[in-house]
Amino acid sequence: MTASELTHDERIDWLRLIRSDNIGPRTFKSLLQNFGSARAALDALPALARRGGATRPIRICPRADAEREFETAQRLGAKFVGTCEAAYPRRLAAIDDAPPLIAVRGNLAALARPMIAIVGSRNASAAGLKFAERLARELSEAGFVIASGLARGIDAAAHRASLVAGSIAVLAGGHDRIYPEPHTDLLEAVLHEGAAITEMPFGWEPRAQDFPRRNRIISGLSLGVVIVEAAKRSGSLITARFALEQGREVFAVPGSPIDPRAEGTNGLLKQGAALVTEAADVISVLEPILGQDQSLSAREPDRDEEPIPGDEPDPDARARIVALLGPAPVGIDDLVRLSNSTPAMVRTVLLELELAGRIERHAGGMFGLA
Amino acid sequence: MTASELTHDERIDWLRLIRSDNIGPRTFKSLLQNFGSARAALDALPALARRGGATRPIRICPRADAEREFETAQRLGAKFVGTCEAAYPRRLAAIDDAPPLIAVRGNLAALARPMIAIVGSRNASAAGLKFAERLARELSEAGFVIASGLARGIDAAAHRASLVAGSIAVLAGGHDRIYPEPHTDLLEAVLHEGAAITEMPFGWEPRAQDFPRRNRIISGLSLGVVIVEAAKRSGSLITARFALEQGREVFAVPGSPIDPRAEGTNGLLKQGAALVTEAADVISVLEPILGQDQSLSAREPDRDEEPIPGDEPDPDARARIVALLGPAPVGIDDLVRLSNSTPAMVRTVLLELELAGRIERHAGGMFGLA
Repeated sequence: MTASELTHDERIDWLRLIRSDNIGPRTFKSLLQNFGSARAALDALPALARRGGATRPIRICPRADAEREFETAQRLGAKFVGTCEAAYPRRLAAIDDAPPLIAVRGNLAALARPMIAIVGSRNASAAGLKFAERLARELSEAGFVIASGLARGIDAAAHRASLVAGSIAVLAGGHDRIYPEPHTDLLEAVLHEGAAITEMPFGWEPRAQDFPRRNRIISGLSLGVVIVEAAKRSGSLITARFALEQGREVFAVPGSPIDPRAEGTNGLLKQGAALVTEAADVISVLEPILGQDQSLSAREPDRDEEPIPGDEPDPDARARIVALLGPAPVGIDDLVRLSNSTPAMVRTVLLELELAGRIERHAGGMFGLA
Repeated sequence: MTASELTHDERIDWLRLIRSDNIGPRTFKSLLQNFGSARAALDALPALARRGGATRPIRICPRADAEREFETAQRLGAKFVGTCEAAYPRRLAAIDDAPPLIAVRGNLAALARPMIAIVGSRNASAAGLKFAERLARELSEAGFVIASGLARGIDAAAHRASLVAGSIAVLAGGHDRIYPEPHTDLLEAVLHEGAAITEMPFGWEPRAQDFPRRNRIISGLSLGVVIVEAAKRSGSLITARFALEQGREVFAVPGSPIDPRAEGTNGLLKQGAALVTEAADVISVLEPILGQDQSLSAREPDRDEEPIPGDEPDPDARARIVALLGPAPVGIDDLVRLSNSTPAMVRTVLLELELAGRIERHAGGMFGLA
């Protein structure tokens, strides 16, 4: 995709659309494809949601709110960058649920360089911290930017060791809500050569569920993810899972089976993650990939995506499609086949239902009742 | 191969043959195949060595020495068991350089049970020792006998945790030369349910080069070898290499890249060893193999091995074969082709040269000048 820069008005429209109710990154992308612009999508939202059976009008982010957020961003030195723009990290743009807009503070140029994520336990061991530092420094020296989550433990060690060459902190809240708060100074240091990015609004306090969601951006930015230490069922393993789904390399650092902080990483190794004891283990896997910018996307975009017709779908068809949906996610192909409708019709109905808050969009183009 | 028990006289002949100069396990096997019995081989030795160009008569172990060693063994409660006998561990018998006779103390029946080797650093970490104990206990409880090398550190921990269910200590010296000496009590404890075995003569003080040689027996006895901790270039890695050559499973326990005691094991994991953090990781790999006793041998025995003709080989042919040998090992097939001789002729010449101490036999049927 060739880059296309947003005008101020377009950027405000994008911000309004992604800040409106029931619109996640995938729905945003679908609306943009179907209506050609965020403005056209915003105009169409009320009718779409109504047809989807919304019991009250869909909440659309007012222009004034978006302008205010834009001004706050400017005051803090943050820029909103859209997926279609040249400054948007190319690998992140390739993921299925790329944030339509990211707010970036710091050195935008760092986002254009090849990135490796280093993540791990907050409650890390001395050996884990030492290794994370060593690895981050060596990968920095080899020309990679290090992405991480600004958390205590491994994340902070990885950022600290990559400040000079460039580090990217991906936040789970707004730029004015740094978590953990004591890492505010570390974040300032990151901004010199690197950058901080978030998809969340200014003023947003990160909640527990925002961290896993944020993790898809850490892996999405990166050629590969190195998990240094991770207990069972930890956030780092979620990052590893995202990396796999996004077709990124997963690396894990081995540890003693006696140490619970190594359970997650040893588990990843058993599942086939590449074992890392030195930077060369990562570089040797990633260097061959560096040139392959043509094949960025892990998953081919849907080829059969068709514009939603302006006309209202046949009410019988809508009823048939709705009847087929349940809590277990189903794919569009199945819905087309079982409802005896056209793909365009099914997509329209799904978008309407989604905007009405009645269904949820899952990974891999699957839909289920909300 | 169906088991055939040795008579006392045959056992003494076997002992004399393997205790004679220039005769290792592979040469022993070759002599036995070619002459039908150890006695016939002993009778043929002087002439073979002479034809091979020995400058002085080959030293043949006198019958009296063998009888004396046999009596010493009896006094210590040790039994000599030959590769052809039912009590000889079947998996060990299948390796290329199986010791023709092992001297066994303790519970012979333990040798018939499925074995797993657990080996590792002498200078082990607390975590390594704890893990070795846990693993040995759990594998014991699952019905496996644990083989190891009675060394300090991991070996001792593995023996201690498997005393109740059966542990096999493989010695690098004679049964009356326990190394390290402070492990004499541990060895006595091993003998209750398990056994100690060695191929070395009574009275033999283990030298540095005897330990790697001994390690092939540890792996040879076992379905698989677990390396718990190992520095670079350590003896445990030699055991792992033997295990691979013998077609046995290699397991390695991960450790922190910061810990030099994990360098060897992490290296094995990078090379494809199976990662072990719990007994189930070992059992799940080995259980399917347990039934496959038909396919014990990692390497098929040579099918084209032919009896050496009683006649002396043509002197020209011998000269051609000798001229082809150098320090770099060459295979019999190449020698046959390049010397334009028969395989039987090449084998005879090689055996003679070996007995004369002029060439060395390497793994995989390769020969080079000594």
